[in-house]
Amino acid sequence: MDEFDLSTPVRVLERAECETLLHAADTGRVAFANGQFPMILPVNFVMADDLVVFRTGVGTKLANIPMQPVAFEIDGRTTDGAWSVVVVGHAREVTTALGPRYDALRASHLETVAPGPKMYWIAIEIESISGRAFRAASR
Amino acid sequence: MDEFDLSTPVRVLERAECETLLHAADTGRVAFANGQFPMILPVNFVMADDLVVFRTGVGTKLANIPMQPVAFEIDGRTTDGAWSVVVVGHAREVTTALGPRYDALRASHLETVAPGPKMYWIAIEIESISGRAFRAASR
Repeated sequence: MDEFDLSTPVRVLERAECETLLHAADTGRVAFANGQFPMILPVNFVMADDLVVFRTGVGTKLANIPMQPVAFEIDGRTTDGAWSVVVVGHAREVTTALGPRYDALRASHLETVAPGPKMYWIAIEIESISGRAFRAASR
Repeated sequence: MDEFDLSTPVRVLERAECETLLHAADTGRVAFANGQFPMILPVNFVMADDLVVFRTGVGTKLANIPMQPVAFEIDGRTTDGAWSVVVVGHAREVTTALGPRYDALRASHLETVAPGPKMYWIAIEIESISGRAFRAASR
């Protein structure tokens, strides 16, 4: 999706539009509490059913994200504006103990650009989605 | 900066490299606590001295960010990889009460792509900067 119907300078995106954008993207950013400050880290991801799924190795994300409330964001530019979609929800590590729905995720096609082992799969159970698009102001 | 010297698949960026990337970018994302979940919102920004400065109107950012710990992230792709830089620090609304250092910010050249009034200036006082670059894994 490269362009939006923008009859107003700023438009709140419908949930279906947000979902289309999420399915088309492959890189986003996850925000989570990390001690004194929040943290934001980029991840490659896929949508699997209605879950945001990404992989990670041992590190900051694995230590802080599972079972926590997180935000996940994608954004992009259009010819004459920009858009962003934000998901919030709880993150879970994908384990077989969580049942067949999660087992299916491991069959997802999810390549990471970053090198190194990414043995752990994290799924964000979406609590809400918001998005907006806007025409660029005169620059 | 389009390419990095990557003698290893993943490299932690020096602070000077992070600062160069921050000065070259014009769009980033700020993460902050927002009730039950974190929030991430994209912003246009400039570096002013060693502050990350952005403008906002009345809304979620203005209500939640001033005086709070925040994270701020930029990222990008290179021909054969990607990079990201994350700043954490405390955000302050820029007001004349904060002294001449902040007065100077209002003279900064800071255009926002998003339309609408952005009357409030927010400055993030950098507590720490981290960044990394990596070569893409085989895709």
